Amino acid sequence: MSLKTRLSAPHWQLILLTFLAFQSITYAAGSGDNVIDFFWIGLLLLIARLSSLVEKVGQPAVLGELIVGVLLGNLALIGINILEPIKHDEIILFLAELGVVILLFQIGLESNIDQMKKVGWRAFWVATVGVIAPFGLGTYVIGPMILPGLSQSAYLFLGATLTATSVGITGRVLRDLNKLHLPEAQIILGAAVIDDVMGLIILAVVSSIVKMGSIAPSEVVLITLKAIGFLVAAIFIGQFIAVKAGRFFSLINVGEAMKFTLLVIFCLFFAYLAYLVGLAPIVGAFAAGLMLDNAHFKHFADPTINQEIQAAIKGTDEKTQQEVDRILERHSHRHLEDLIAPLGHFLVPLFFVMTGFQVKLETLFDPQILIVALAITLLAFFSKLIAGIAAGPVNKWIVGWGMAPRGEVGLIFAVIGKQLGVVSEGLFSAIVIMVILTTLLTPPILSYLLRKHNT
Amino acid sequence: MSLKTRLSAPHWQLILLTFLAFQSITYAAGSGDNVIDFFWIGLLLLIARLSSLVEKVGQPAVLGELIVGVLLGNLALIGINILEPIKHDEIILFLAELGVVILLFQIGLESNIDQMKKVGWRAFWVATVGVIAPFGLGTYVIGPMILPGLSQSAYLFLGATLTATSVGITGRVLRDLNKLHLPEAQIILGAAVIDDVMGLIILAVVSSIVKMGSIAPSEVVLITLKAIGFLVAAIFIGQFIAVKAGRFFSLINVGEAMKFTLLVIFCLFFAYLAYLVGLAPIVGAFAAGLMLDNAHFKHFADPTINQEIQAAIKGTDEKTQQEVDRILERHSHRHLEDLIAPLGHFLVPLFFVMTGFQVKLETLFDPQILIVALAITLLAFFSKLIAGIAAGPVNKWIVGWGMAPRGEVGLIFAVIGKQLGVVSEGLFSAIVIMVILTTLLTPPILSYLLRKHNT
Repeated sequence: MSLKTRLSAPHWQLILLTFLAFQSITYAAGSGDNVIDFFWIGLLLLIARLSSLVEKVGQPAVLGELIVGVLLGNLALIGINILEPIKHDEIILFLAELGVVILLFQIGLESNIDQMKKVGWRAFWVATVGVIAPFGLGTYVIGPMILPGLSQSAYLFLGATLTATSVGITGRVLRDLNKLHLPEAQIILGAAVIDDVMGLIILAVVSSIVKMGSIAPSEVVLITLKAIGFLVAAIFIGQFIAVKAGRFFSLINVGEAMKFTLLVIFCLFFAYLAYLVGLAPIVGAFAAGLMLDNAHFKHFADPTINQEIQAAIKGTDEKTQQEVDRILERHSHRHLEDLIAPLGHFLVPLFFVMTGFQVKLETLFDPQILIVALAITLLAFFSKLIAGIAAGPVNKWIVGWGMAPRGEVGLIFAVIGKQLGVVSEGLFSAIVIMVILTTLLTPPILSYLLRKHNT
Repeated sequence: MSLKTRLSAPHWQLILLTFLAFQSITYAAGSGDNVIDFFWIGLLLLIARLSSLVEKVGQPAVLGELIVGVLLGNLALIGINILEPIKHDEIILFLAELGVVILLFQIGLESNIDQMKKVGWRAFWVATVGVIAPFGLGTYVIGPMILPGLSQSAYLFLGATLTATSVGITGRVLRDLNKLHLPEAQIILGAAVIDDVMGLIILAVVSSIVKMGSIAPSEVVLITLKAIGFLVAAIFIGQFIAVKAGRFFSLINVGEAMKFTLLVIFCLFFAYLAYLVGLAPIVGAFAAGLMLDNAHFKHFADPTINQEIQAAIKGTDEKTQQEVDRILERHSHRHLEDLIAPLGHFLVPLFFVMTGFQVKLETLFDPQILIVALAITLLAFFSKLIAGIAAGPVNKWIVGWGMAPRGEVGLIFAVIGKQLGVVSEGLFSAIVIMVILTTLLTPPILSYLLRKHNT
């Protein structure tokens, strides 16, 4: 009997299957069998790029990413389940989280610390009003009005949830439209950081009151000091460390790879430190971006292209020389952002597509919840628009709408409330819808306002 | 009783701990509580950058990354267990795997497909001898000699393990020392790809013989056709798709972000396709890199710096204009590699530090296993040096040593053998040591040879 005839066709396929199974097992030994994620990541990036078609109609790219995310994340509603594994894929969720950290780091790099200080007080007032207004109205007025009969704790959590500002969406819109330099943008960014500190305190207070019936003022002071201490340390001590680290590592290697890696290390460490003191990792990443500038890396070589071109233009007339110098200088100033940009291209779209992916459209199907949700959403927008008024002599609408998205920060509050048993399933769903609406409606409204402001 | 006095100090800490625990839980809701990975990744990158000190003594950076990886991965031997979680961290293992995929993609981009075709036949002979020599010697000579009394299947697996070539290490050394343009480098890269196809066939045959006692020739033909078909399709159809995709996506956006993302998508999809047909993902990534060049992205805008400088040098004398054109042209040719470089800076060191991390130094403590391991290691080097002779009129030593590292590909074979029950614990340990030694000894030897070749 020949080898050929000994193996019938089904036998054949069995070998092939066994073989492929072995392949999976063996890669699993090395990498946890996550090779499929190569495909998922490629697919998500492809989708994100296709979605940037919305730019053709004047919308920021982030809106396209959110929309395709929502559409693809809800394909299960029409019976297509093939993309469901992505929602719970730990690796993709991590890369998305890393993406928003890199985004805020980039925004920090592009922000000017002096400009930031100039709007510091105004940012503080915007944040303060933007916390008090939604908390007060949510807890004491709108909560008891639209959801009568709930416990005081439930209203407290609703109010707390409404105080959050998630700066990822707004930051991305400002960046997509190249508006980060506006004073309005600086106020929003500063206010969002301060808002996160205040949110941290509120969360501690509210959680403690719900669990223990009270909280020690010293506890509140401690949390406050820790958060503020972190930010001060990050920005002032961080700059000092950056100079030292820049000099030290330039002794090992003066290349771009070293400079790039130092940037990433700063970003990651400060994101983690922020998390350790209880702040959102994105606040740490933003602080890291804010503290760093080219001066800290003066020991590193200029990009080769500059040297080559400088060599080539030797001997040309004075005027051209000056022009080229000006361009080279501008190029070198933009250099830190340019270095980190490709990492952002890779990771940032993953965050926004995944944000869309997590939106559960079926929550919109219960009319009763929907009505409550719409009321909360109106309050969410209204109370941040009030905050915009505190911004002083700038375009208050831009600031107000810019503070509106609640994003993952609002969700975190709601999740804690649910875990403590004070936020019901229905209220939780309504909060989720509010988060979705503030997230999805802000990009088109904000980009409309920014374009109008421009002209 | 005041709030303050109601809470004693331990109470206090309890609140803080509860609060921090909640923070973890809530972030877990969003990201699977992997914020600690921000810290680990930062730490690994920091270590990798420090280790590039080895460049000061003329060694390639990859050697430093491997060595610090080995040292830190074995801190448990002296009682320090703090880094142990990294070894099993799914996210870091994935990023490392993605790192070697990006590395081979970069090497593919830097390789010239015409140069590659020129050395095609020589690469084929190097691969063929480099598979037959170790397989024959391992299975029929050295195996029975140093490990008498084992089953024929065990010798088969030993032989199969020795055929593997892991091109990650060699590719990185060639790249660190800027030698990818050498014909020797092109032969090694081509031979490694062909080697992977041959290895796939051998693995299928050996596995089938062990399990079934036989294999259908048609099965062998099928696997061969699938692997070769993939490579041909990747390189020829891929180029065609690249042109179409380049044109299509340039209609959406002509910016760098789009171009960069297209590169990443190609890399990831081909890595995954290679995996689907049973090849290593790195082979797919290499093929993707090889198929792409700037011509496919001609619809995209040049980097702004070029346009600005071109504008600035208008009106300068003829000679300077030509020089600048030459530089700009060179810059534009290097452009795809430059775009992808930062992603490589981020991910590639993770792979090599993690490769070092996985080295278990305690396997070296059993003298009996160590002797067997050394014998296999000598065979591993010797049999690939024989393959180098098939390279024709180039530096045969460089080719031979370049083919020596077995890396993860060799380990995969050993793991399958162990799962099938034919490779004993002892033989497995010896194979692991062989993989370690071929991986760790190759960088210094190869860089010595390359420097000597240069002068």
